[in-house]
Order: sequence, then C-alpha cells, then structure tokens
Amino acid sequence: MYVKRYYSLWMTVRWSKKPLFYGLLYSAIIIAIYELTAIPFTLPWEPISVIGIAVAFYLGFKNNSSYDRTWEARKIWGAIVNDSRKFATAILTMIDSKEGQKHQVLKKEIVYRHIAWMLALKHVLRIKKSWEHDEDPEKLVFAPSFCGEFAAGLTAEVKKYLSDEEFVYFQSKGNIPSQILKRQSEEIERLKNDGLISDYKQVWLHQIISKLYDDQGMCERIKNFPLPRQYASTALWMNYVFCALIPFGLLNIFDQSTALHVWLTIPFSGLIIWIFFLMDKIGDYSENPFEAAYNDVPISSIARAVEIDLREMLDDTDIPGAYPVENGFMM
Amino acid sequence: MYVKRYYSLWMTVRWSKKPLFYGLLYSAIIIAIYELTAIPFTLPWEPISVIGIAVAFYLGFKNNSSYDRTWEARKIWGAIVNDSRKFATAILTMIDSKEGQKHQVLKKEIVYRHIAWMLALKHVLRIKKSWEHDEDPEKLVFAPSFCGEFAAGLTAEVKKYLSDEEFVYFQSKGNIPSQILKRQSEEIERLKNDGLISDYKQVWLHQIISKLYDDQGMCERIKNFPLPRQYASTALWMNYVFCALIPFGLLNIFDQSTALHVWLTIPFSGLIIWIFFLMDKIGDYSENPFEAAYNDVPISSIARAVEIDLREMLDDTDIPGAYPVENGFMM
Amino acid sequence: MYVKRYYSLWMTVRWSKKPLFYGLLYSAIIIAIYELTAIPFTLPWEPISVIGIAVAFYLGFKNNSSYDRTWEARKIWGAIVNDSRKFATAILTMIDSKEGQKHQVLKKEIVYRHIAWMLALKHVLRIKKSWEHDEDPEKLVFAPSFCGEFAAGLTAEVKKYLSDEEFVYFQSKGNIPSQILKRQSEEIERLKNDGLISDYKQVWLHQIISKLYDDQGMCERIKNFPLPRQYASTALWMNYVFCALIPFGLLNIFDQSTALHVWLTIPFSGLIIWIFFLMDKIGDYSENPFEAAYNDVPISSIARAVEIDLREMLDDTDIPGAYPVENGFMM
Amino acid sequence: MYVKRYYSLWMTVRWSKKPLFYGLLYSAIIIAIYELTAIPFTLPWEPISVIGIAVAFYLGFKNNSSYDRTWEARKIWGAIVNDSRKFATAILTMIDSKEGQKHQVLKKEIVYRHIAWMLALKHVLRIKKSWEHDEDPEKLVFAPSFCGEFAAGLTAEVKKYLSDEEFVYFQSKGNIPSQILKRQSEEIERLKNDGLISDYKQVWLHQIISKLYDDQGMCERIKNFPLPRQYASTALWMNYVFCALIPFGLLNIFDQSTALHVWLTIPFSGLIIWIFFLMDKIGDYSENPFEAAYNDVPISSIARAVEIDLREMLDDTDIPGAYPVENGFMM
Amino acid sequence: MYVKRYYSLWMTVRWSKKPLFYGLLYSAIIIAIYELTAIPFTLPWEPISVIGIAVAFYLGFKNNSSYDRTWEARKIWGAIVNDSRKFATAILTMIDSKEGQKHQVLKKEIVYRHIAWMLALKHVLRIKKSWEHDEDPEKLVFAPSFCGEFAAGLTAEVKKYLSDEEFVYFQSKGNIPSQILKRQSEEIERLKNDGLISDYKQVWLHQIISKLYDDQGMCERIKNFPLPRQYASTALWMNYVFCALIPFGLLNIFDQSTALHVWLTIPFSGLIIWIFFLMDKIGDYSENPFEAAYNDVPISSIARAVEIDLREMLDDTDIPGAYPVENGFMM
Repeated sequence: MYVKRYYSLWMTVRWSKKPLFYGLLYSAIIIAIYELTAIPFTLPWEPISVIGIAVAFYLGFKNNSSYDRTWEARKIWGAIVNDSRKFATAILTMIDSKEGQKHQVLKKEIVYRHIAWMLALKHVLRIKKSWEHDEDPEKLVFAPSFCGEFAAGLTAEVKKYLSDEEFVYFQSKGNIPSQILKRQSEEIERLKNDGLISDYKQVWLHQIISKLYDDQGMCERIKNFPLPRQYASTALWMNYVFCALIPFGLLNIFDQSTALHVWLTIPFSGLIIWIFFLMDKIGDYSENPFEAAYNDVPISSIARAVEIDLREMLDDTDIPGAYPVENGFMM
Repeated sequence: MYVKRYYSLWMTVRWSKKPLFYGLLYSAIIIAIYELTAIPFTLPWEPISVIGIAVAFYLGFKNNSSYDRTWEARKIWGAIVNDSRKFATAILTMIDSKEGQKHQVLKKEIVYRHIAWMLALKHVLRIKKSWEHDEDPEKLVFAPSFCGEFAAGLTAEVKKYLSDEEFVYFQSKGNIPSQILKRQSEEIERLKNDGLISDYKQVWLHQIISKLYDDQGMCERIKNFPLPRQYASTALWMNYVFCALIPFGLLNIFDQSTALHVWLTIPFSGLIIWIFFLMDKIGDYSENPFEAAYNDVPISSIARAVEIDLREMLDDTDIPGAYPVENGFMM
Repeated sequence: MYVKRYYSLWMTVRWSKKPLFYGLLYSAIIIAIYELTAIPFTLPWEPISVIGIAVAFYLGFKNNSSYDRTWEARKIWGAIVNDSRKFATAILTMIDSKEGQKHQVLKKEIVYRHIAWMLALKHVLRIKKSWEHDEDPEKLVFAPSFCGEFAAGLTAEVKKYLSDEEFVYFQSKGNIPSQILKRQSEEIERLKNDGLISDYKQVWLHQIISKLYDDQGMCERIKNFPLPRQYASTALWMNYVFCALIPFGLLNIFDQSTALHVWLTIPFSGLIIWIFFLMDKIGDYSENPFEAAYNDVPISSIARAVEIDLREMLDDTDIPGAYPVENGFMM
Repeated sequence: MYVKRYYSLWMTVRWSKKPLFYGLLYSAIIIAIYELTAIPFTLPWEPISVIGIAVAFYLGFKNNSSYDRTWEARKIWGAIVNDSRKFATAILTMIDSKEGQKHQVLKKEIVYRHIAWMLALKHVLRIKKSWEHDEDPEKLVFAPSFCGEFAAGLTAEVKKYLSDEEFVYFQSKGNIPSQILKRQSEEIERLKNDGLISDYKQVWLHQIISKLYDDQGMCERIKNFPLPRQYASTALWMNYVFCALIPFGLLNIFDQSTALHVWLTIPFSGLIIWIFFLMDKIGDYSENPFEAAYNDVPISSIARAVEIDLREMLDDTDIPGAYPVENGFMM
Repeated sequence: MYVKRYYSLWMTVRWSKKPLFYGLLYSAIIIAIYELTAIPFTLPWEPISVIGIAVAFYLGFKNNSSYDRTWEARKIWGAIVNDSRKFATAILTMIDSKEGQKHQVLKKEIVYRHIAWMLALKHVLRIKKSWEHDEDPEKLVFAPSFCGEFAAGLTAEVKKYLSDEEFVYFQSKGNIPSQILKRQSEEIERLKNDGLISDYKQVWLHQIISKLYDDQGMCERIKNFPLPRQYASTALWMNYVFCALIPFGLLNIFDQSTALHVWLTIPFSGLIIWIFFLMDKIGDYSENPFEAAYNDVPISSIARAVEIDLREMLDDTDIPGAYPVENGFMM
C-alpha cells in the first residue's frame, strides 16, 4: 500500500509505460503506412465512440469489483484485529484462579499460539496463485524489510510462538492455520476438564474461535477465488479492440483538417490508449489483495500491530517495533 | 472456474463464435441487398447510438447482477467451509469424557455424517433447472475428472460416509441434505440424553446446525430462483434490436465516404455486434453458478478441501488428494 | 415467476403491446400533420439525446431498485425456509422425555401451528395494495392451480393445521400471523412450566421465534412500503416527455435525407418508444414482489416445499406433492 | 408517503412549478435580448452536453443516496416493529408465575412503557433540523389527522402509557427515549431480584433492550447526519450552471435553422431545465425521511400498527383503529 | 460537518478558487499564444468528449467510494452511541446487591472509564496521516471551540474520568483505548471473583466489550487504510489530462464561428475545468472522515452527546452542555 498523498505523475507514467509506448508505436505505424500508401483506410468516429463508452462502462465495473475485493480484504483483517483482542482479553480475564494460582504461563502460551495462527495465516495468504501477477516478491526493491521477511518465510516467524513439538506436528498438515485453531479448541477443552472454566465459558471461547475460523475462511475465499476470469478477460480484449480502432478514427478526423494535423494522430491516440489501459491496470492491480506486491492490503503491518497490542496486554518486555514504512510503501 | 490469468483471445473468440459469424453474415446480406437494389434504406446513426447506450446500461446491469450471484454463491460455500470447521472442532472438543472413554468412534461418525451432508448438497445443487444452459455436464471434455464424478453421482460419494441403513432411509426422502441435518440434531439429542453434553452445549451445537441450515437454504435460494427472466429476456431482445440496426447505421456513415468504404460496413458491424453479444454472454454464463459448467463456482474443489481438512482433524490416514485442476479449469 | 430460459419475442411484444401500438400511432399522427400542413415543426436531435441519456439513467436506477426489492423478498422467504427447518428440528429434538413419554402429539401440534403461520403469512401478503397492479389474481389464466388457491383463500389452507378453537380465536385479531407466533411463545412457556425444557432452552426457542418475527416483519415492510411514488412517477413522466419528443427529432434527421425517408420516422420512433417503455415496464412489474401476479416471488411453491420438508421430518404419510409449474409459471 | 399508483402529471407539475416557471422566464429573457441586440452570444452544444452528462451522473448519485437513506429509515422502523413484538412476547411468556400469581398488571405496565418509548421516539424524530425543509408541519393540508397529532405533541400521546411520576421524571432528561429504556432495564433488574426471572432470562431481556437501543440509535443517526452538504450543494450549483447554459446552446442550434425556430428555444430549454430540476428535487425531498413532510417514512402509521398489535396481545379492549390514509397520503 | 441547508455559491467558489483561477489562466495563455502565433494547434472535440465521459465515470466512482467511507464512519460512531448505552445500562442494572450495598461508586467508576475510552478514541483518530490534508486543525477559524479542544489534547479530557494511577499506566502503552478496554475486562473479572455477577453475566459483559473492540477496530480501519492511492492518483492525473485538452477542443469549435467568439474559449473552458475539479475535490474532502477538518464526521458532538446521556443515567449533576455549532459547522 502506498501511503503518500498521491503517486507522482512520473511514478504513474513509469508504472504504465508499456501501454503508452506501444500505443504511440502502433499509432505511428498506422500513420506511416497511411502516408506511404495513401490508402484511405480511416474509420468514422461515431461508432468507435459507442464502443468506447461501452468499454468505459466495463472497465468501471471491473474497477469497482476490484476495489470491493481490496476493501473486503481490509475489512477481514480489521476483523482479525478485533477478534484477536477479544480472544486475548477473554483468555486473560476468564480463567478462574485455582488454589491461588493465576495460570500466567498457560495464558501466555495460548495467546502466543494465537499470534502464531495469525502469522501463519499471513504467510499462507502470500503463496502465488496462477491468476496473480508473477513478479517475484523478493525483488520489491522499494520495500527491503518486506523482502527479508518474505525470504525468511513462515518458519522464521511462527516458530518463536510455538513449542518445537507443536510446530513439527502442524507442519505435517495441509492447512496449518486451521489445525492451530483446532489445537486451541483442544486447549480450551483441557481448561474445562481441569475445572478452570465452566461449561458456559467453554462455549463462549469456542464462539470466538468460530469467529477466527470465519476470518480465516473469508481470507481464503478472496485468495482462492479470483475475479471471474471471463469478466477480466473480456475487459482486456474489448479494450484491445477499442484501442486498435482509435488511430483509424482519429485519422479520419484529423484528415479532414489541414495537412499539419495528420501527424497529431500519433500523440493524441497514444494518450487515449494510455488512459484506457491505465484504467484497466488500476483494476487489475487491486483484484488480488494478497499477492505480495505493492498494492496489497498491508497485512504485515496489521499483523505486527496486533502482535504489539497483544504482547503489551501480557506486559511482555522485548516487544518488536511497528512495521517500517519504506519509500512510501507499507506492506 | 478458469484459473489461468486470462482466457486467450482465441478461446474467447471460439467461445463466442456464433454471434461473430451471424453478425458478419447478417451485415453481408444487408450490404449485398443494398448494392444490388440500390434502395437507400440506410438509417441515421444518432438515434441508434442512444439505443446503444441504453443497451450498454442494461447489459451492465445484467452483468453486475450475474456477478453478484456468482460472488454470493462463493460466499455461501466459504461459509460452508467455516461452519464445517466450527462444527467439527465443536464435536471433537465438547463431548465430555465419561468413565475414561473418549468416544472417538461416535465423534468420527458425526463428522463423517457432516461430510456426507456437504457432498449430498453438492450433488443436489447440480441437477439441471429449466432456465439453465442445457449442455450435458458429462461432455465437459476439458475436465475429465469432473465428468467422472458427475456420472458416478451422489450415491458413489455419499455412501462411504454413512451407514447403509441410514443411506437407505435418506433416499426415501425428498430433500436429502435437510434430512441429514435433522438426523444430526437427533444424534446431539442422544448425546444430551446420555449425559455426554450439557443442556447448554446442546443448544450451541443446534446453533451451529442452524447455520448449516442457513448455508444450505442460501444455496437452494440461488439455485432455485434465477435472475428474473423478464430482466434476462429484455436484455436479449433489446440487444437483438440494437444489433439489427447497426449495419443500417454504419451503411449511412460509410455511404457518405468514397466507394471503397461501403464494404467496410461488414467487418465493422460484425465487430460491434460481437462485442455487444460478448457482453451479454458473460452475464449469461455467470447467472447460474451451480449449473455444472465451466464457469461455475468450483464446489467440487471446495468440498474436497473441507473433506481433507476435517479428516486431518480426525487424524485419518487414507485422505484423498486435492481436486485436480485440468486444462486450466477448477470445478 | 417465469421458469423457462427466455420469454419469447412474441410474449414480450404481446406483454408490451400498448406502448408499441400507441408509439406507432402517435408518430404516424405527427408525420401526417407534418405532411399535410408542411409546417417545419421539427426539433434538433442533440438536446433530445441528452434527455434520453438522463431518462436511461433514471430507468436504470428504477430497474435496479425494483430488482433489489424482488431479490430481498426472495431472500426473506429463503430465511423463512431456513428458520422453519431450525424451528422444527429444535422442537423435535430438544424436548426432554419425561417418564418414558416422547410427546409426539405435542411436537406435531407445534410444528403444524408453525405451518399454519407460514401459510397465513402467504395469504396475508397477497392482499392488494393501492399502488399495486389491479389485475384480478383469479384471472391468471396461465396458472389455474394458483387461481384456485387464491379463490379458496386463507381459511381453506390454514384451518387444517390448527384446532378449530384456535382458528376462531385468531380470526378475531388484526394480524393473524403475529398472534400465531405469540401463541407459539405461550406453548413454549407451557413446556417450560411442565418441566419439559429448561430455562435455557426456552430462551433459545424464543430466539428462533424472534427470527420468525423478523422474517414476517421484513415481508410486511416490503409489502407495505412501495418504491417511493415520487421516484416511480418521475420516471414515468420523464419517459413520456422524452418519447413525445422523439418523432420531432427523428423527423428533423430524416427530413434532411431524400423524400422516401420521412415516413421511416414512424417505425423507427415506434421502436425507440417501445424500448424505453419496455425498460420502464420491467421495473414496474418487479417492484411489488407479492402482488399475486406472474412476476411474483413464487411463495406458493416455497411454502409448499417447506410444508413437505417439515412433514417428512414428522414422518407423516399423506404429504402433498410439489407445487405445479403451469405453462412455464411457478407461483 | 403517497400511496396511490402514480402522482398525476398535474400534481408533479404543481409540485415543481418554480423551476418550470423560472426556466421559461430565464430563457425568454435570453431570447428577447438576443433578438433586440442581435449580439451573437450563442454557445456550441457539444461541451454543454458533456456538462449535462456529468450533471446527470451527479444527480443520479444524489438520488441513489437519498433513496438509500429513505429505505434504510424504513428498514429501521421495520426492525422496531419486529423487536417490539419480540419484547412483548418475551415479557408475556417468560416471567415465572409465583405463588399462583400471573403478574398481569406488571406485564402490562412494561409493555405500556415500551409503547411510550416508541411514541416518544416518533415525536423526537420529527423535531426540525437546520438542513431540512422548513415548511410548517401543521400546514400539511392534505393530512389533517397528522397535523392534529403533530400539534398535540409528545405529551398527549406518551402520557397515557406512563405513570404521572415517571413522565415527570423523564421530562427532566435530555434524551427521553434513551432514559425510558434505562428504566426498562431497571424494571427487569427488579424482576430478577424478586425471583421472577433467572439470571439467564435477565440477560436475554437485556439483549432485546440492546436491540431497541440499536434501533433508536440508528434512527438518530439518520436524523442527525444529513447527506453531506458538500455533495448536496455541489449538485445544486452544477445544476444551476448547466441550466444557465442551456438556452445559449439551444439558441445556437435553432439559429442555424429557419427564422421561425428561434423562439422555440424558450419552451424547449424550459422543458430541459424542468426535467433536471425535477431530478434534483426528487433526491432533495427523500434525503430526510423524518422531517414531518409528505414524503416521509410513515412512522405514525407504523407506530399505530405496533400499538394495535401489542395491545391485542394484551387482550386490551379500547384499541385505537389503524392510522387514516387521507387524500392518498399515509404519514 | 456543515449543517446549514446549502453551502452558498460564494463559499463553494471560495473553497475551489484555485482550480477556477488556474483554469482561466491556463486557457488565457493558450488563446494568447494562438492569437499571437496563429499556429492552428486546435484539437477535435469528439475524442476529447470520450475522455471526458470516462473521467466523469471515474470521478463518480471516487465520489461514491468517498461517500461510503464517510457514511460508514458515521455508522460506526452510531454503533458507539448504541453500545455505550447498552454497556452503561448493563453495568447499572446487572450487578447483584450484596449485603444491602448497591455498589454505586464501583458502577460510576466503570461508566467513567468507558467515557474515558470513548474520548481517548476520539483524540487518537485525529492524529494526522501522511495521505490526509495537511491543514493545521488549530487554524480552523470557523470552529474556535474545536480548536481549543484540539490544542488541549487527549490528556485534558481523558484525565478527569480516570484515576491518576491508571492514567499514568495507560500512557506507557502504544494503543491507549485498547488497553482501557482490557482494564474493563479485568474489572469485570473482579466483579465475578467478588461474587457480584454470575459466570453468565461475565460473558455477556465481555460480549459488549467485544462489540466495543469491534467499534474501535472499525474506526482504526477507516483511519489507517486510505482510499487506495492508485485510485485517487489516477483520477487526479486523468482529470489533469482532460482539463489540459479542453481549451484546444473549444478553440476548435469557437474558431469555426465568427471572430468575436475565440476569446469565449477562456471563460467557457475555465467553467468546465472548474466543474470537473469541483467534482474531484468533493470526493477528495470526504475520503478521510477523521482528519480534524470541516467535512469530518462530527465525532466531538457525538461523543459529547454520549457523555451527557451516560451521566444523566448516573444522575450526575455538573453535566456539560451540548457541543456548540459555530458558524454552521458541527465538529
């Protein structure tokens, strides 16, 4: 996530330089052929503009849907924040003291396992899917801390919050976060059997764990179900068709003016092509909010904030600092 | 569901070759008649473009609604994933041990019956409706595993998770998944009567079953209630009317240029007709997310993932593998 | 609800024949006067097209809202299905056996009263409102079964599921379904007082009844609160204004071509008028999803499906069949 | 709320006569000056039409948002209906009999206090805000019953459902409905302390009261937070700018035809101005659904319906009739 | 939040004077160069209008999203109002009397700590973010009371509702509101351990605190996650491109009329540029509803209203007055 007020024009152009360059090149080739052969292959502008409006509609729909996906992803991680705080306070304040014992070690163990769940989920969400952009996350030069974290992987972060034996067990399973939550349920069963919580509190704790299952499942839903590819593909091909027609239409218009103007077709159609591909790219880069790229929902920062918050609740001492913002990017 | 980055242009064209072909043919006939008879039956472009914008609006609305249906269907199956995990952990960790017994067999039986419910629901959702596309699911050549599964039907998959006697009983009923959930409620009543769970836990388990009823009912709602046919039909007929007018309008425009241009009406109106029918088809193929076709919500894969997850929770051994992606399609 | 794939073009035209006919007639009169008097009362097309786009927006908004109303109505009845199943399984599995008794009669009575509630609600929702279409439901020739059901009325269906004395009592009240639910609460109080359910289960059962109150109240909300009439009326009058201007604008365009063309104004403006009124009618007929007409949410079928499902749970024998689809209509 | 099928054209025109009149007058002045001075101050139509489309978008957005506010307001009052029924049945069926007593008086008192809460809320919501229309509600000639109710005010209606002492106490507080609900909580505490309900039921009753707090708070949110004035104002000023340009643009078009036509600018631009201001007014009058005016959500009728329903549950005798519909308006 | 009916035209123009001024200046420079050099660098209007429609779409999308953010922010604070009332009534009516004691001091302490939470949250939400407008909140001349409050900061308001020792403790933590809620949970644990509430009520109180965590987390989500900057930036740069082209396009149109008209390009393109930047600014200023500026959600007033309401419930005496509206602004 970029956190400055605006992407500069320069960054925007650099980011979308390919359609701009190819748009100009394509237009130049058309005009060159036109000038050389003098074949009047221009097209009328009116029907092209109907296609243009239809394409703008379609791109608007795609941008809207992509935005909704990103926003929903952010909402889910907001829910993870809230449910983590709920779970931690429940664990910290609902276990009955027994024979003067306050069970601090036990409580800390459960809260740590919760942090492990959250961090494992974060890493699992960043495994590449076949429909995502295939840039290598380890090459995100503007966010070196994130590259380091990504390269170190799940083990480095999750291991410190779990006992070795548990960690080995979870690694043998297909869906690690799901099995961690199952383990939490078993711990709560043990609390119940040890008489530290009542039947009633067991249910309430299981209800919070159910919310965490919801949060996890909703993340997986967004991760595993792309914007339907038929929608995305149609938008792309319609955009290509529209942009392919633009120079012919503009040529028709400029051709009717004075001679000077014909060459103006090149920059002008380059500009329109650029704008339409820019609209397409915006949607395209917001579709998958967990693809380990610059426009992602910043789940590393969010997870770190929860980590700090929960460990402050435990009155821990060696708490890590907030996740760094580097070159305007928060990951 | 297609899982590659984009449908290739070639796949897109092949998928929508009928409107492209008929659009070209229709335009060619119009132009041929015009050239032969020399009757000036052209139409002005301005009012046609107003119709075109209205049609684009309408198709946009239809695409939007179809997308919402698909997305809601995916959400519901996401909820099935979450609620299945909740139910399984509840069953595994909430039944009181009695006289040292852990009731593993009983727990496994209930979790298995849950998997049976989910698989039965999957099959029931794929029975054809009168408003769905009538392609035969057994001919989906790109997804042979799915064809096999579909041909084998409900019995093959569901039977392994139920006792024979139960399976026979359920087959005598109209709505199998609904009756399986009723049976789960009876099992929970039995747990209660046997003193394995408290009154309170019985209610919580019934609340989870209520959620499963919600999930099932929401699937049935989308399956049994199409996009209202008056909306779908109007979009179709308006599109036909608009496309029927296009060659007349373009003829009018090209006719005012040099002679060479009149024949350009054919490819150009073929292109516009193709784009508008492409927009229509996209919506049309996303309307019914459970019709056992390529653009469905991939409920076979989702169900398989849940099956694996739950059986890992049971520490089962002969767990099936993930559902295969074949030729880019996940079913 | 129509359940075939598409309304045929013929059905669509027949359904909207009035605007088509009057559109053609009106255009013909305009052209006739123009030809006879030779007064140049044409109007420029450009500003008319701005009005046209504004009207298309407005109709799009209206169609969208109407669709949302229909879809919400369907969702509510989906919730009625789910909550009915929940309530029935709760009644069937949560009442404690006492002295070996299983209380089958009592359970059946409560489930039957629930079916009575649902059927009463169905009938109450179909009483005509002043803003609904005033076609007589008993004349829906394509759906004879429904006509019979409607003519027989609430009493015929509801009475079989209630004792006579109760039925008489409910008839003396203003809102029958609401009073049936109150009676259910009293029955549950009686179960509690007789020691058949605990305090805790009483609350859970009351929570399910609260959901049923929600479902009922949401139906009543859609039934009793139309799409605000100022929105509907403005769309209508704007559409009339736009359509009244169309022939003048087309005349202007055709007039500038050869003589042959002037008469083309008639079919062409008839066509545009027809399309815009068609868009208006689609919204208009989806606004009120419970008006006992062809495009309603099919609450008779849904209610029947629930009736079957619940009675199968009771292992009843003389269960009615599914509601018939007649001439493509499901009511 | 208007409850007939459509506002007649005449009512629509009378309601929006000011923009129609001033639109015609303004256009006439422009044309008169043009004719007298012969200065060619016309403007090209193309850019005006781009502004027009932008304005239509903006008005569409505003209408949409206003509609959403009205619809949400109606939903909240629907929830008040549902939650009132829940609360009343809970009070009527959850209080344990003690020593043969059924506590009818006590139950009636609590239900009556609930009705008082609802009626007090209704009156509080109709106090004018600085951004609402400032017509005097006592002058709504088409709805005389409502005028009477409004003039009589909160005291007249609320007092009959409360003891004198309580009423005086509530009047000393800032937010009367909020304090009534607090009193209900205290009553429920008293029931608990008197052993008439268990701990568990106290919580459930407090949960229903929490829902009522939600309902009240949601009404207050819509009442106290207008559609942000920057949105509303921009729509207004953009509309003025667009309408101010219309005659100049039309003049340009008509001027290019025969002399007869120039005067046609006046009715034609009057018509377009009227349509755009009509679109603006529709949104404007739906923004504030509780301003005690004709297009309000009909909270008097809804409140009356609940009053009747609850008192029927109490088997009261002198129950008031349904709220009257007068001249097509339901308030 | 502005609370008068409309921003006056003068206020609107003053607020957006920069784009108006630069728009006029830019157009004037273009025209001057054109007149001096006589180079025919005009551009055709048709393709510019396609860009204009695409930009209008995009700005519409941005305005919509911004509005949704503001409205969601208001909803969350509405939920804070409701949940505060729930929490206060729960504390006031659910603690069992013990040995005749009513625990008034204890109750007051908890309710006061709740007010401290709310006020702390208010202040935390107003700390500037890197993507927000960087006007200094202490210079909001139209709202002097707010400036004072902002300058005094968190300590001044929060300290009076907390004991000194607690306040010092909270200041050592990263997220103060979060830690206050944790403390509330500990207090409730103490109530439980002292036998003042049952196990069951502890859970219900923790559920209300969970709701407060939700409310807080949702505020933080909107505060910490801007409208994705790629969307906002693209809208801005597209708008610049479109506005840069406008004078060239208008010049083309005016150039084809009489000489007098060329200079009209200046005011006319200034006007269009102003309208498009006005649309952009509206969205821009609603994006961040907690940036301590004029168009914010009025959280100071809302918090004050809750403060009054809760202290009235405590029958406090020195209750502060409602938050002042100054110069039409409510903060």
